[in-house]
Amino acid sequence: MAKDNKKMVREITSMAEDFAQWYTDVVVKAGLIGYTSVKGCMAIKPAGYAIWENIQQELDRRFKATGVQNVYMPMFIPESLLQKEKDHVEGFAPEVAWVTHGGLNELQERMCVRPTSETLFCDFYQKEIQSYRDLPKVYNQWCSVVRWEKETRPFLRSREFLWQEGHTAHATAEEARARTEQMLHVYADFCEEFLAIPVIRGQKTEKEKFAGAEATYTIEALMHDGKALQSGTSHNFGDGFARAFGIQYTDKENKLQYVHQTSWGMTTRLIGAVIMVHGDDSGLVLPPRVAPTQVIVIPIAQHKEGVLEKAQEIYERLGAYRTKIDDTDNKPGWKFAEAEMRGIPVRVELGPKDIEAGQVIIARRDTGEKVTVPMDEVEVRVGQILEQMQSDMLERARAHRDAHTYVATNYEEFVDTAVNKPGFIKAMWCGDRACEDKIKEELAVTSRCMPFAQEHLADTCVCCGRPAKKMVYWGKAY
Amino acid sequence: MAKDNKKMVREITSMAEDFAQWYTDVVVKAGLIGYTSVKGCMAIKPAGYAIWENIQQELDRRFKATGVQNVYMPMFIPESLLQKEKDHVEGFAPEVAWVTHGGLNELQERMCVRPTSETLFCDFYQKEIQSYRDLPKVYNQWCSVVRWEKETRPFLRSREFLWQEGHTAHATAEEARARTEQMLHVYADFCEEFLAIPVIRGQKTEKEKFAGAEATYTIEALMHDGKALQSGTSHNFGDGFARAFGIQYTDKENKLQYVHQTSWGMTTRLIGAVIMVHGDDSGLVLPPRVAPTQVIVIPIAQHKEGVLEKAQEIYERLGAYRTKIDDTDNKPGWKFAEAEMRGIPVRVELGPKDIEAGQVIIARRDTGEKVTVPMDEVEVRVGQILEQMQSDMLERARAHRDAHTYVATNYEEFVDTAVNKPGFIKAMWCGDRACEDKIKEELAVTSRCMPFAQEHLADTCVCCGRPAKKMVYWGKAY
Repeated sequence: MAKDNKKMVREITSMAEDFAQWYTDVVVKAGLIGYTSVKGCMAIKPAGYAIWENIQQELDRRFKATGVQNVYMPMFIPESLLQKEKDHVEGFAPEVAWVTHGGLNELQERMCVRPTSETLFCDFYQKEIQSYRDLPKVYNQWCSVVRWEKETRPFLRSREFLWQEGHTAHATAEEARARTEQMLHVYADFCEEFLAIPVIRGQKTEKEKFAGAEATYTIEALMHDGKALQSGTSHNFGDGFARAFGIQYTDKENKLQYVHQTSWGMTTRLIGAVIMVHGDDSGLVLPPRVAPTQVIVIPIAQHKEGVLEKAQEIYERLGAYRTKIDDTDNKPGWKFAEAEMRGIPVRVELGPKDIEAGQVIIARRDTGEKVTVPMDEVEVRVGQILEQMQSDMLERARAHRDAHTYVATNYEEFVDTAVNKPGFIKAMWCGDRACEDKIKEELAVTSRCMPFAQEHLADTCVCCGRPAKKMVYWGKAY
Repeated sequence: MAKDNKKMVREITSMAEDFAQWYTDVVVKAGLIGYTSVKGCMAIKPAGYAIWENIQQELDRRFKATGVQNVYMPMFIPESLLQKEKDHVEGFAPEVAWVTHGGLNELQERMCVRPTSETLFCDFYQKEIQSYRDLPKVYNQWCSVVRWEKETRPFLRSREFLWQEGHTAHATAEEARARTEQMLHVYADFCEEFLAIPVIRGQKTEKEKFAGAEATYTIEALMHDGKALQSGTSHNFGDGFARAFGIQYTDKENKLQYVHQTSWGMTTRLIGAVIMVHGDDSGLVLPPRVAPTQVIVIPIAQHKEGVLEKAQEIYERLGAYRTKIDDTDNKPGWKFAEAEMRGIPVRVELGPKDIEAGQVIIARRDTGEKVTVPMDEVEVRVGQILEQMQSDMLERARAHRDAHTYVATNYEEFVDTAVNKPGFIKAMWCGDRACEDKIKEELAVTSRCMPFAQEHLADTCVCCGRPAKKMVYWGKAY
């Protein structure tokens, strides 16, 4: 029975065999999502939503520390409003859902369900901002948005997803630029410190930037399979939207000026990143800081006298951490496999012999390492192990990324790397879109970003051989 | 200048003159909402959203203490899914928004934006629940819903609003009934302890119950103008939805059984209740527990030496409360009026003379009462005043409600009260819908609830004179 159970829980495709199937198996078997009758939309189950709640809480705290205020705008955008900024409507109109009827009546003007809310915030700011005293506005909202994707995958690409979208308005171009950068660093620090995911910070090329933006900054992470995941973006709009929407203020000299705007967003896609950066063949591996359950106490031979009581006592002593106890009547093998599948960072086991010896066994989810610890040290040791695990996971992910980051100085090397070595490719670029198009068409590789930390790898563009302007990270992406 | 400013901030319609206009003035001038170009939908601004965040945080904590887990379901409901439960679709179909196109294509089946998510949770539970081991499911989601209302008012009735909706599935009818009641009491306690709003707990009549429910429980609050506001509802579905959706589990004896379900919700309407129960002619009055800013420190003659420094010191000493300092260059009169309009519970003033005397002045928003307090007692006294104010506000609202609750034992009294005395009317009822219909048609008065705490006021129905079955709270409602 125990063995069968264990096998049943553990039965997921191995990463090496089929990474995409492994991913799907993990999101389902770890209880993160359920499928629904609504095509392309998922149900986020408690284990998945609890991860999102932790992400929200920590990001929101970091936002507020920089002066962000939360608001809520309508979920609908009248068609005429969506159309006010030319590039923006071209970028989003093909992938929105349209509401045409309210109750029993056809609407006079159809409305889309927000794919993003620049137009709504602009409409709002146009009404709210009159004077320099009304600036800056540094607003954010937590909500869901809809984009009518043809192919969907849980967390990575779905027709509806949860996110936050910050929208700010500033008196000067410089202030808007600084806020765009500031938020990108908030995102990057959050990924590294909280999710243990190292990221490349940089700027998108013209081709890859957001519809309507002057500049888009991005953080790019490398998944275990060597594909890139855009994990957060921050856009500087300059005064483009302000001109389209007429958002003006009177400055201290009583002159009319356009505001300068930014927007920035992170989504439930981050949960996909956590899975694909840290997971293994036993399932999910959650960094301690984001894990809804950090410690699970598992009694062994719990029918024996005193075991459950002692396990309960240990459980209570671990109250400083997010701790659970598994005192179900399942066999220990099943409980271990289940806790592993769900990615719980630390497991504390104890059975009759341990109790007799006044000890417990602590197992780490990421390395599988087990240590025997005197019972009265359990709180301290669990705390140390959680901290160590958090930093080890970041370092391991960084090492994996660095080992899968390649340099190409000519097109032959570039092609060879793109075809044979999954990972990032660092290469010089002339700045011309034609080269990006060629690389994408021939190799399905896109420019991920022009990193802030530029390096001089060669004098010429890796694609066309003309003088290089920028070092770019390239990769296949989700 | 100071006087003009003060007047400008304060210029709202008085409650006595026009309560509806007073309400609109307060929501706008206190910065709670902004109007948008999306008809019937509002923008919730930082001051409004911060109230909602406090409500969410406290309710969520209380939910989780009863074993609730958060999830997220899609915002769309395919038409065929909405139609599965007969009463439910009849109740909601006339007021939903329909999505007919995704991107450039017409959908094969149109979908509505959720007006509530019973059907989605049922569809989900049907897939997720197999065995008694899968029960109970006690799930909740925080989201927005859409109902295509013709007439809208900020917070009270808008086409899109924010809420939480709990949806549970249980093995037995008794467990479902108990959960329905438990959540109603969670709601009632929350309103009384956190929002300082006293409520009547009771059951809706057949006429007023939720579409598809076996029984609907409700909490009803009385606004300052004597109108009732339904402030939270909890529904027992029995096995009605389970039969419509085929949600079955195998029990311990391996027999197939239908689950029993509940749902319960509270919305941003609560913010409207807070405004209409506690507000006054100077604006919003927020109970300390829900107030985003509990204390505001206002320096007087702040250009004088040492004033700003001392104010800053006091501000820092009040770090245990949600405190702000208003060190803008506006005049004190403006600052006072602004703080009053925004409903900040406690104001701490200090000027050069106070500093010399080693004192500050503490003013309470609800009573206007001012006390002079030695500086070194400021933390303690502010804490005491906040606590006192919280409980005084509840008692004052209770006294107002009790003073506006009338008894009618015959139809003449009932009509006289309904026409002349805004408030609740307690009266006996035969249980027949015809009497409810008559009362509604003739007096625009509806049955608010059959309170759990029944009283015997008379032997006969206040409307038809036949034997009475229930004591009912009646009233005009928002």
